Amino acid sequence: ENVLETKKSVLQQIKVPNGHGMSQLFVTDTGLVVPSISPDLRSRLFSTAEKFGFTQERQIEMVGRSASEMVLQLLGGPHRLNPNNGHQVPTVVLLCGPHLQGTQAINCARHLSNHNVNVYLVLPNFIKMNKYMEEELKLFAFCDGNRISNLKGKNSDITIELSQMGTGSQISKRDGNRISNLKGKNSDINRSPGWEQVNLKDLPLGSVDIIINALDNQETPNLKDQVWYKTLVEWANQNRAPVLAMDPPVESNSVRAKWCLSIGLPLNMVMQSSQLYLCDLGFSKKVFAEVGIKYLSPFSHKFTIPLHPKE
Amino acid sequence: ENVLETKKSVLQQIKVPNGHGMSQLFVTDTGLVVPSISPDLRSRLFSTAEKFGFTQERQIEMVGRSASEMVLQLLGGPHRLNPNNGHQVPTVVLLCGPHLQGTQAINCARHLSNHNVNVYLVLPNFIKMNKYMEEELKLFAFCDGNRISNLKGKNSDITIELSQMGTGSQISKRDGNRISNLKGKNSDINRSPGWEQVNLKDLPLGSVDIIINALDNQETPNLKDQVWYKTLVEWANQNRAPVLAMDPPVESNSVRAKWCLSIGLPLNMVMQSSQLYLCDLGFSKKVFAEVGIKYLSPFSHKFTIPLHPKE
Repeated sequence: ENVLETKKSVLQQIKVPNGHGMSQLFVTDTGLVVPSISPDLRSRLFSTAEKFGFTQERQIEMVGRSASEMVLQLLGGPHRLNPNNGHQVPTVVLLCGPHLQGTQAINCARHLSNHNVNVYLVLPNFIKMNKYMEEELKLFAFCDGNRISNLKGKNSDITIELSQMGTGSQISKRDGNRISNLKGKNSDINRSPGWEQVNLKDLPLGSVDIIINALDNQETPNLKDQVWYKTLVEWANQNRAPVLAMDPPVESNSVRAKWCLSIGLPLNMVMQSSQLYLCDLGFSKKVFAEVGIKYLSPFSHKFTIPLHPKE
Repeated sequence: ENVLETKKSVLQQIKVPNGHGMSQLFVTDTGLVVPSISPDLRSRLFSTAEKFGFTQERQIEMVGRSASEMVLQLLGGPHRLNPNNGHQVPTVVLLCGPHLQGTQAINCARHLSNHNVNVYLVLPNFIKMNKYMEEELKLFAFCDGNRISNLKGKNSDITIELSQMGTGSQISKRDGNRISNLKGKNSDINRSPGWEQVNLKDLPLGSVDIIINALDNQETPNLKDQVWYKTLVEWANQNRAPVLAMDPPVESNSVRAKWCLSIGLPLNMVMQSSQLYLCDLGFSKKVFAEVGIKYLSPFSHKFTIPLHPKE
């Protein structure tokens, strides 16, 4: 271990095994080095933790709560949320896919709503939903947050038309079955079989403070081909609100994210342009040791910390 | 609701039903009023939440994590825990009874140990232990914290002798089966059947930064009669470290506490001399409504907040 007696001393308390791809190095605000790991190694870390008794439910609660704490800070903390100061209630939209990231976002949405944030949870009605997602949805139903699931509305006033090629979108007005393009160009493409309508009328009409993108998951890249996915990506990219990416895959994200929340240890990202945050899962170092990672917590007194690329 | 346009405006967003004892009023730093509730009403709140799907495991994780965050701050936050600054690693002793508070403290102990605090978990080997306590102990076993369970040691060098009447203690040196009183007075009382030895030699010899008292529980006041309980209370009261009481009962606490962590809503305390903190359980307002409490979160951007008696 390399301890330098300078203001910016560097201490590598975490060491990852070789042979798991190109590990990147990050530093915490206090100068601790945090290396990235491969998605494969992280999967083994998660499954080992579960085997040791750190249940999925517990892990989801850790991540959802950390994400909500982070978002409450990003929204402006006490100044924004003080009911006495007359600020407008902040609005957060959470875009969820049918996987772990989506489940964590539902948990986060509940905590945000409990803390008086105006919440929109966007989650298509998937046929197959795992039990953890169902549990989180059950708890979410007791809060005041809005859930938007019926993305293919029949009586919608405003729809977004979107090519399956993801080349662009036009806002259209729908009157019965007739579609009048408001900003139509290439109208022949618009009517091709590749276009479908997705109802977004339930999304907030006013300004959105933060969008949480929990659409992406390392193990299910095929979601990207689905219409609801493309519609939501398009909507998020058109919106001016800053985006927090919830544990995105190593390939570049479909939605430009200002912030990115990594879980446990950061992944070997192909490209990383967001401000990176790391969230503690509460695993003890023996769990890390089991998959070959020498670990000493970099979190100090916090459960979520910013990470900076090591020069 | 009474909104005053002054610097210290007061807003009562939480209202509790009548007929549940003398409700006390507290205010948050931002001027929100938080009333106390009876232990009976709180029990119903907890069981309602569980019925709604907020599992015990989830609640324990919420409380344990909040308690650990609070303790990490009280220890000195980033200054104390920065591995570069050469401070001594902080030491926390957690005294646990066989109940919910004890279980929350085990969870807290794990998080503290994960965050590099030197932890001593003191928990007698109870014959009957509920499954949540067993789960938390299983997870605690993976961290570096010390667990002290065998309180009735055979080969102890130092024992504390204690009357079942709780009148006082003497430090004794034990040599085989012979007990030589070091500070003996009233030696006839010392040898009466009411005295027993409890081994405390595994507790830290150096200074302790914070003691967490999770010995007390509203529903099991009879613990107070047991020798291990009295020994630990005596030890804590003799130690100079400040004490955090983990959700204590409404009657005055056996150990003088500098801080007190309440869960969900504060209880109607008979006497409250500690600095009160309140911890969010993540229940939505519909859970509170089910037991007649009108609720809007007073937590702002945090999950643990200080409360002050309302003038």
